[in-house]
Amino acid sequence: MQLKVHSLTAAAFAPFGDVIEVTGHAPRWINDGTCERFDDLAHIDVAADGGRAQVSLFRAQPRRLPFAIEHLERHPLSSQAFYPLQPVPFLIVVAEPGAVPEGARLHAFMSSGEQGINFRRNTWHHALLALHQTSVFLVVDRGGPGENCEERHVRGEPVSIDEL
Amino acid sequence: MQLKVHSLTAAAFAPFGDVIEVTGHAPRWINDGTCERFDDLAHIDVAADGGRAQVSLFRAQPRRLPFAIEHLERHPLSSQAFYPLQPVPFLIVVAEPGAVPEGARLHAFMSSGEQGINFRRNTWHHALLALHQTSVFLVVDRGGPGENCEERHVRGEPVSIDEL
Repeated sequence: MQLKVHSLTAAAFAPFGDVIEVTGHAPRWINDGTCERFDDLAHIDVAADGGRAQVSLFRAQPRRLPFAIEHLERHPLSSQAFYPLQPVPFLIVVAEPGAVPEGARLHAFMSSGEQGINFRRNTWHHALLALHQTSVFLVVDRGGPGENCEERHVRGEPVSIDEL
Repeated sequence: MQLKVHSLTAAAFAPFGDVIEVTGHAPRWINDGTCERFDDLAHIDVAADGGRAQVSLFRAQPRRLPFAIEHLERHPLSSQAFYPLQPVPFLIVVAEPGAVPEGARLHAFMSSGEQGINFRRNTWHHALLALHQTSVFLVVDRGGPGENCEERHVRGEPVSIDEL
């Protein structure tokens, strides 16, 4: 089964989390009118069980198509936000809620490279899928006690992304 | 008085906060060896008085030199992190601790454009100083109740940045 890749929009991604972007948000002017502030673009949900917000950098190698979607992961204790530090498109694969991710319930989105995303707590998602070049992302997730990563094989018919 | 601009390094900036960068940090490999993770690069201190981590985008107009440093601000309830979303240098101006920022105790640093910074709670700092072009920054600071911004005129002899 080939997964169709959709443009990333706030509306389409809403079941899975937030799109972090200026588009669609009204700024307020700060710093004596030299800076627009687009406030509070992601629901950072990291405080469960003694957690705290953690800022990290991920440097991801690019993937090549066709690409088989075999495993997804989710974080039971927190959201996880990624913002690309180069204006280069990257892929996002998520699954609808359930105990195990199912091939028939996967969705793929393409960030423009000027859009970050924040996976809602417990949302099944694929690991980073950089394209075209080695890509760095700023990541906001959770530091703290407890096991916060669950990984599962995708159930059902094999799924791949064959073209963008 | 002209303020000399120093290269941004973790050691030089340590009294004021964190430098968010891959340099000097050992990664761990994740995602089946496709991604290096540089973990926990900033002390995100936002939980005081019912606070929570907030992610925003700032779009700042560039400043022109010579530039007079007249006001600084500080956040009594939280840290504040900035990461540039284009590889373009920007200026950072901070002051040593005190009830009011003093011209003689200011320090200026230049980010390479591949370095973010996280101001420690209560650190006097100038508002964003983009250079060269309109620049977007991902910001991690605090949402929540209470007044979290104090702004003061710099005391003493006038201070400016005349050259980079």
